[in-house]
Amino acid sequence: MPRHTQVVIVGAGPAGLLLSQLLHAAGIDCLVLERRSQAYVEARIRAGVLEQGTVELLDRAGVSERLHREGLPHHGVQMALDGDVFRIDLHGLTGGRSVTVYGQTEVTQDLIRAHQSRGAALLFEAEEVALHDLAGGRPQVTYQHGGESHRIACDFVAGCDGYHGISRASIPDDVLRVFERVYPFGWLGILADVPPCNEELIYSNHLNGFALASMRSHTRSRYYVQVPLTERLEDWPDERLWDELALRLGPRAASRMTRGPAIEKSIAPLRSFVAEPMRYGRLFLAGDAAHIVPPTGAKGLNLAASDVGFLADALMEHYARGSDVGLDAYSGRALARVWMAERFSWWFTSLTHRFPEMDDFARHMQVAELAYIRASERAQMVVAENYVGLPLAYAATPLGGR
Amino acid sequence: MPRHTQVVIVGAGPAGLLLSQLLHAAGIDCLVLERRSQAYVEARIRAGVLEQGTVELLDRAGVSERLHREGLPHHGVQMALDGDVFRIDLHGLTGGRSVTVYGQTEVTQDLIRAHQSRGAALLFEAEEVALHDLAGGRPQVTYQHGGESHRIACDFVAGCDGYHGISRASIPDDVLRVFERVYPFGWLGILADVPPCNEELIYSNHLNGFALASMRSHTRSRYYVQVPLTERLEDWPDERLWDELALRLGPRAASRMTRGPAIEKSIAPLRSFVAEPMRYGRLFLAGDAAHIVPPTGAKGLNLAASDVGFLADALMEHYARGSDVGLDAYSGRALARVWMAERFSWWFTSLTHRFPEMDDFARHMQVAELAYIRASERAQMVVAENYVGLPLAYAATPLGGR
Repeated sequence: MPRHTQVVIVGAGPAGLLLSQLLHAAGIDCLVLERRSQAYVEARIRAGVLEQGTVELLDRAGVSERLHREGLPHHGVQMALDGDVFRIDLHGLTGGRSVTVYGQTEVTQDLIRAHQSRGAALLFEAEEVALHDLAGGRPQVTYQHGGESHRIACDFVAGCDGYHGISRASIPDDVLRVFERVYPFGWLGILADVPPCNEELIYSNHLNGFALASMRSHTRSRYYVQVPLTERLEDWPDERLWDELALRLGPRAASRMTRGPAIEKSIAPLRSFVAEPMRYGRLFLAGDAAHIVPPTGAKGLNLAASDVGFLADALMEHYARGSDVGLDAYSGRALARVWMAERFSWWFTSLTHRFPEMDDFARHMQVAELAYIRASERAQMVVAENYVGLPLAYAATPLGGR
Repeated sequence: MPRHTQVVIVGAGPAGLLLSQLLHAAGIDCLVLERRSQAYVEARIRAGVLEQGTVELLDRAGVSERLHREGLPHHGVQMALDGDVFRIDLHGLTGGRSVTVYGQTEVTQDLIRAHQSRGAALLFEAEEVALHDLAGGRPQVTYQHGGESHRIACDFVAGCDGYHGISRASIPDDVLRVFERVYPFGWLGILADVPPCNEELIYSNHLNGFALASMRSHTRSRYYVQVPLTERLEDWPDERLWDELALRLGPRAASRMTRGPAIEKSIAPLRSFVAEPMRYGRLFLAGDAAHIVPPTGAKGLNLAASDVGFLADALMEHYARGSDVGLDAYSGRALARVWMAERFSWWFTSLTHRFPEMDDFARHMQVAELAYIRASERAQMVVAENYVGLPLAYAATPLGGR
C-alpha cells in the first residue's frame, strides 16, 4: 500500500463505500479500511427503503444500474390503526417524488462490485485501526492487515464505521456532546422468501403494539412486530410471529399474507442518538458513527447518504478550488438535517408504538392523530415530504439562540 | 315561570347562551339556569381567540354586531424559540381563513344583552339545580330561585355548566368513561391596560419555559408565563413578571413591550380532559362540561361553540322534522372533533412548554420541530388549519376498530 493518500475512509458500509465512489469520480484518492470480512459486510441485513435523494446520489456515483432494474418504486405508503388501513399518496402529495424499495445489502454489494471492478483501494479485515494526530495538519492511520502493521498519512479521515466504530471514539470526550433516547421495546423482524402481503409498506398501530409489513422484492418479505426488550427469540416460533402479524396488520393484509420459513429472525433495540459536532480537526463523521435513528420511517441509511453527499461536495471544493468553506460548514449543515430526521423518526415511533407507561389519554392522542392524518390532506403532505426525504434547503439556517 | 319548556339549558356561559340564542332563532323554547350572578358571569376572564367557525355561529345567532366592530381579525400567528420569532400566515395558508381576537367576556356580555333585550328566560343565581329522570321520556329540573323551589319539565336538558357543573355529575359513573392528563405546570397570567407588544400573538418556547403575548384589544394586553404549580402569586410582583416576559418573548417583543399595573393576575393549572359519551338519555353535554383543553392554541371556547352548533342543528331537526338522527349522532360527531382539538392542544402544549422530566434529547425534539415548522410551508399549513379551526368534515368517519 502507498504511504500516503488524500482521504482515509474508515468503514465499508454504504456510507464509506458511497463516499469513496463519489470521491473517486472527482479524482480524489482514498483508502477504505473495513474491520470485517467482505462476506460479512455483504450479508449484513439492514434497511430497505431509499429516499429519492439517496437514489440520485447513487446515480451520481454510477452504481445504480441494478437498483433501477430491480428496485421497486413506491408511490405510496400505508398506515393502520387496529387493522383499519389508509394510504398516503407520496407521489401525488410531493409533486412527483417517491421512495425505492431496495435492500441495503444490495446497495452494499453494488458498491463493492464497483470498487473491485476498478481495483479501488478497499481493504477488508483491516484490524486494530487507529487514528492519530487528527487535530494537527497531517493525520495518520495505523492498522493491521495480512499479518503486517501499516501506517498511512492522509489529508482527511472520514469516520464511516458506525455506532460502535473507532472514529467517534477517537474524539476527546470534552469535545463531544451526546443526545440519546433508548426506547422501552425492540423490533422482532423476520425475513422470508414469500411474496409481500401488500404492494406498499403498512405501518400499523395496534393495541398489541406496532407492526410493519415491508419487503425487499416481489418474492422476499420483511415483517416486524414490536416486542418487549425482555422477549427471547426462542419464544417466537415462526407460526406465533405470523399469527401476531396477521392480527396487528388487520384482516385484509392477513388474508393476503403468505407464510414461509424465516431466512433471518432477530430482535433489534430502538435508539435515537446524536453526537455533536460531526467534525474533530481533520476527522469527519458520517452516518451511524454520528447518529442513530429508530428504524420507523427508514431514515438511517438515507441520513448516511445525505451526510456523505455534503462531505463529498465539501472535499471536492477543498481539492478543486482550495476552499474550506464546505468543510467548515459540514458539521452544522449535516446536523441541521440530522435533527429534522431524528424528529421525524422519533415522532413516527411515538405515533405507532405502544409504550409501557401509556395511559388511555396517551393512546387516544395516537388515535386522534392517525384520524387527523387520514382526514387532512395537509397532514398527509407533511408525512409524505418527510417520508420521501426533506429538501436539503430546510436545514439551511439554524433557529433560536443556541 | 312556566311548568314546562322544550329545552332546559344549565349554565349561562358562552356555550349555554349561544345554544339558547340559536334555539330561539329556530322557535324552540328554552330556559337558561345559571348558578352565579350576572355580574360574576360578565366579569369572568377567559379565552380571547375566536375561530372563523365560531364567528360564523355568532353571526347566525345574531350577536356579532359589536364583535365585527371591535374584534381584531388576525391573519397570522407567531412562534418563537429562545427569542427568535417566525410567523405563520394563517390567511395565506388556509385559503383566506383567519381568527378574531375578542374576549370571551365580551362574547358573554353580547349574548346576555341579546337575551335580556328579548326578555328571554334566563335566570341568574338559580341554586341547587338538579336533573331528574334523564333516562326517561320526560326529564325534570328542580332549582331554588328568589327564595322559592321550582320544578320544570322539559324534553331535553343541555348541560353547559362547565367542568365543575352538575350536568356531567348527573350521569351514572358506569356510563361515563373519562380521559385525563394533568400538566406539571400552570400559566401565570396578567391582564393590563397597555398596548400589545406585537400585532399578532407570539407563542414562545424558551429555556425558562413557555410564554405567550396575547391581547384583548389595541389597548388591553394579556400575557402569560409558564410557572411551576407550586408557585405563589405573591412571589410574582408585576415587575418580576414583566422582566420574565421580556426575556422569554425575545428582544424585539421586549423593546416594544409597554408595562403597566395588573388589572388581573392569576395562576391557572393546565389540564386535558374528555368524558365519553356526551349524551345520557335526554341530557346532552356541551363545552367544558364534557371536555377541557390546555389553553395553548385557544381551543376551549371554540370547541364549546362547535358542540353547540352540532346540538342546535340536531334539536332543530328533532322539532322541525321529527327526526332524531342528529341527536343520536351528536355524541360521536362532537367527540370526533373534540379529540382532534384535544390532540392539537396537547401537541402545541408539548411543543412549547418545558417539562420537569425533559432531558436534552426531548428539548432538541422541540427545537427540531420548531425549525422544521419554520422551514416547511406544509408544516405551517398544518398548524394554520388547526389554529383557525379544522373543517367539520374531518370528524365525519371514525378510524380504527375501537
